[in-house]
Amino acid sequence: MKEKTLQQETVFAGKLLHVRRDQVELENGHKSEREFCMHPGGVGILPLTDDGQVLLVEQFRYPYGCELLEIPAGKLERGEEPLVCGIRELKEETGCTAREMIPLGCIYPTPGYVDEKLYLYLARGLTRGEASPDEDEFLNLVQMPLETLLQRIMSDEIHDAKTVVSALKTARLLKEEHHG
Amino acid sequence: MKEKTLQQETVFAGKLLHVRRDQVELENGHKSEREFCMHPGGVGILPLTDDGQVLLVEQFRYPYGCELLEIPAGKLERGEEPLVCGIRELKEETGCTAREMIPLGCIYPTPGYVDEKLYLYLARGLTRGEASPDEDEFLNLVQMPLETLLQRIMSDEIHDAKTVVSALKTARLLKEEHHG
Repeated sequence: MKEKTLQQETVFAGKLLHVRRDQVELENGHKSEREFCMHPGGVGILPLTDDGQVLLVEQFRYPYGCELLEIPAGKLERGEEPLVCGIRELKEETGCTAREMIPLGCIYPTPGYVDEKLYLYLARGLTRGEASPDEDEFLNLVQMPLETLLQRIMSDEIHDAKTVVSALKTARLLKEEHHG
Repeated sequence: MKEKTLQQETVFAGKLLHVRRDQVELENGHKSEREFCMHPGGVGILPLTDDGQVLLVEQFRYPYGCELLEIPAGKLERGEEPLVCGIRELKEETGCTAREMIPLGCIYPTPGYVDEKLYLYLARGLTRGEASPDEDEFLNLVQMPLETLLQRIMSDEIHDAKTVVSALKTARLLKEEHHG
């Protein structure tokens, strides 16, 4: 390890966030501090219907003070496998079950100050059902062709990182399948 | 606004992070709490040489306890324009100046609990110079062909969200230029 931990301190332990401020020794021997948020990890799922539609959820995001369009997603419960979490969140937020959950890799949203690992899946072979969001969760389901989503990503109308990454990776994957 | 702020509280004010816990009223009238990190915003720059090489920086990221490969990036200073920040960070971290800074949009890294807006640019027409990182910043410059970076993204070897988004958007942009 290139930075040595000298001391750990939890400066905030909330319901969601757990914030640390650690004293560290850098490569050059200097002392410094590292402030960061600990997160249990999350999963995002891009549900793609057989006719090329992506299912998105629109919800109010308090930090930005507005509604955002995102792929369904949720936090890992303690000890939960990402795939299990993805199947659960897909069902809760969209009502869908998927015949295939194809891994799209793992992203680190903002590695300077958060330790979250966010696992992404492409869900295909969907069977529709009834969504069952949490009581205090308000989601609008929005459906759009993958091509439209990609256009809106390239024209900077979609900002959520996991949604952008999942859509762009899915496009490449489908192209490889098509040519492979 | 769909969630009404009843009370704001700063629960941690560090050198980097500023953490809030607000009391809010939800759409259904229920009371709830929102914990989130405030961030000044950031800029990431994908520097692409005339012969198709991407310049990346490798650095130790304390929250993950390992080194990560990322595009050059930095935080916005107070009142700074993203483009000005991008030009500054590109110069500091790689020594390069760019003839063109093409906007690649803005991403929200993790909208549930952070308010960061991260502006992305593709830098082209590069002129090399001397890097000048901060005294306590340890960066290794790594160069690889854009095609190699894209392969490593698709095979889940590159995790940083801004790097993944910038490379995938750049690939689409170049393809559009080529066909347009």
